[in-house]
Amino acid sequence: MLTLTDIGEFGLIDLIKKKFMPYGPETIVGIDDDCAVVTGREGFYTLYTCDSQVEGSHFIADLVPPYLLGQKVLTVNLSDIAAMGGTPRFALLSLVLRPDISVEWIDTFLEGFRYKANQYAVEVIGGNLAHTEGKLIFDVTCIGEVKRNRLLLRNQARVGDLILVTGSLGDAAAGLKILLEEQKMNTTREQYLLNRYFLPEPRVDVGRILAESPNRIALIDISDGFAQDLGHILKQSQVGGIVDVERIPLSQQLISWCTVQNCFPLDFACSGGEDYELIFVTAPQSADELRKKIQHEIGIPVTIVGEITAGSKLIFEKSEQNYEFHTQGWNHFSSF
Amino acid sequence: MLTLTDIGEFGLIDLIKKKFMPYGPETIVGIDDDCAVVTGREGFYTLYTCDSQVEGSHFIADLVPPYLLGQKVLTVNLSDIAAMGGTPRFALLSLVLRPDISVEWIDTFLEGFRYKANQYAVEVIGGNLAHTEGKLIFDVTCIGEVKRNRLLLRNQARVGDLILVTGSLGDAAAGLKILLEEQKMNTTREQYLLNRYFLPEPRVDVGRILAESPNRIALIDISDGFAQDLGHILKQSQVGGIVDVERIPLSQQLISWCTVQNCFPLDFACSGGEDYELIFVTAPQSADELRKKIQHEIGIPVTIVGEITAGSKLIFEKSEQNYEFHTQGWNHFSSF
Repeated sequence: MLTLTDIGEFGLIDLIKKKFMPYGPETIVGIDDDCAVVTGREGFYTLYTCDSQVEGSHFIADLVPPYLLGQKVLTVNLSDIAAMGGTPRFALLSLVLRPDISVEWIDTFLEGFRYKANQYAVEVIGGNLAHTEGKLIFDVTCIGEVKRNRLLLRNQARVGDLILVTGSLGDAAAGLKILLEEQKMNTTREQYLLNRYFLPEPRVDVGRILAESPNRIALIDISDGFAQDLGHILKQSQVGGIVDVERIPLSQQLISWCTVQNCFPLDFACSGGEDYELIFVTAPQSADELRKKIQHEIGIPVTIVGEITAGSKLIFEKSEQNYEFHTQGWNHFSSF
Repeated sequence: MLTLTDIGEFGLIDLIKKKFMPYGPETIVGIDDDCAVVTGREGFYTLYTCDSQVEGSHFIADLVPPYLLGQKVLTVNLSDIAAMGGTPRFALLSLVLRPDISVEWIDTFLEGFRYKANQYAVEVIGGNLAHTEGKLIFDVTCIGEVKRNRLLLRNQARVGDLILVTGSLGDAAAGLKILLEEQKMNTTREQYLLNRYFLPEPRVDVGRILAESPNRIALIDISDGFAQDLGHILKQSQVGGIVDVERIPLSQQLISWCTVQNCFPLDFACSGGEDYELIFVTAPQSADELRKKIQHEIGIPVTIVGEITAGSKLIFEKSEQNYEFHTQGWNHFSSF
């Protein structure tokens, strides 16, 4: 008997896609991108995304402060809206709760959710409550919009384009490892990495700048890890890519912590998930201008890490040699 | 320490409502009705609802055929769209799955979901996959629309109006009892009741006829039980109501089964959940015309069961005497 373990996450996604396609004329994008896209009010597309956080798979209730969990549950959805160049507008919050949860815990969780919603002017207009004796689940649907001519998809990369990434990579995966291994957290370094795991910032402002630009841009957010998410852009654009690992942006904290832990920051940066940074791909003549504009207006560093090639392979290089990762990477524990 | 058991489902809903109100001008209805309502394309409102089915709380995986579960997971959402007079358009399907689930099981579930989606011309445009080692969860967000001047809310009941209900009540709750108690299911009677639990039909067509009518109508679907859901109309309209229990529509199968089981059909009809029939309230001069129109065009019986009164109480009467239920009813097991 074939199980989900046998076909994996992407096997199941393929099964689902085949089941529900094709779409009608009002559906611009179905299951193929960070958000579904349908015709919205005049001049706009409406964006839909949903993402759940499952106790034991995405968080451990005793290890995460509920105020931070409330923020993160919304952030992971806002990041998907950002990854289309969209503006988030509304959210639905679906809660699956055990009856012995304290009112104080859920109230603090909701305060965190509200804080993040207010920060991005998102109205929480509905949701659902359900009872369980099992794991807690927080499932959020986020609704956004984007101007019709400025929708940013994954399939827009072309040979010769440059690959850019915001912020620094791998910090969140290191933070999760610190948390799960109950490492000492009393230094600024560990606290920084933990915060990057607990409190990622959705790059909504960056997405908006990219959407305002008239240039052709392919865009995705990093939820499953840089290599895997860049892979989605390549596959859907039917191109390959070369990444220079020495250009991959790493925080001083990650480098320092990896030295002490005797592990390799590039493993975390390329295979660690939950960075919620953005990867975008654009022509060389647009890349530098966009990089400077984002750094200047938002204060977030943007780094050119590689370029798009013909073919379909994603190659990591160091000094023009193939780079071998030390591990198949950090298997973040949410996959099948 | 106060827990969710102490404040109950409605205490938690109040907490959530206070947290996320007030709303901006584009939000017509927030957490107060079957769906959230926001300004949509020209001339229309967009409707949003989400509803989850949780293993152990809403279904038992070994007792429900996956093809029927797939249909029901969408039906409960379509019923919320129907309860606003809306037309369903799109759905997002969020799956929280154990890796040992068989591909055949999930494929059959998806076939059921597709069958129901096709029946109502709903496009499944997105969703989410998450891993768990705990209970299965199916969380659906459904998106619909309704003409701006034909939105049907819960708060439109007025003193002197009549209370009407579609179909027959209590069958689904009896079906659930048969299932959970592993009663013999080999008779037509038990099969009928089981089917009413497994395969409720969302009253989308009825909702549409009501929305096309120019009359003032208050509308809700029955998910938690007739008494509780009628109570929402009364509370939000700030009125009371009298229901004549002898008029409550009961199936012959429920009456016959209750005779054998030595229990009371009205307990199931008034307190049993998951009927997914509609309750609507309208002025006497519109009631009979709407009743006939629905029966004629859809073939579903509609029964006048009571009327709206001043005050805030919901009274059940039999031969003009207060009617006492034999039990506080069927506590369907999804509440806190």
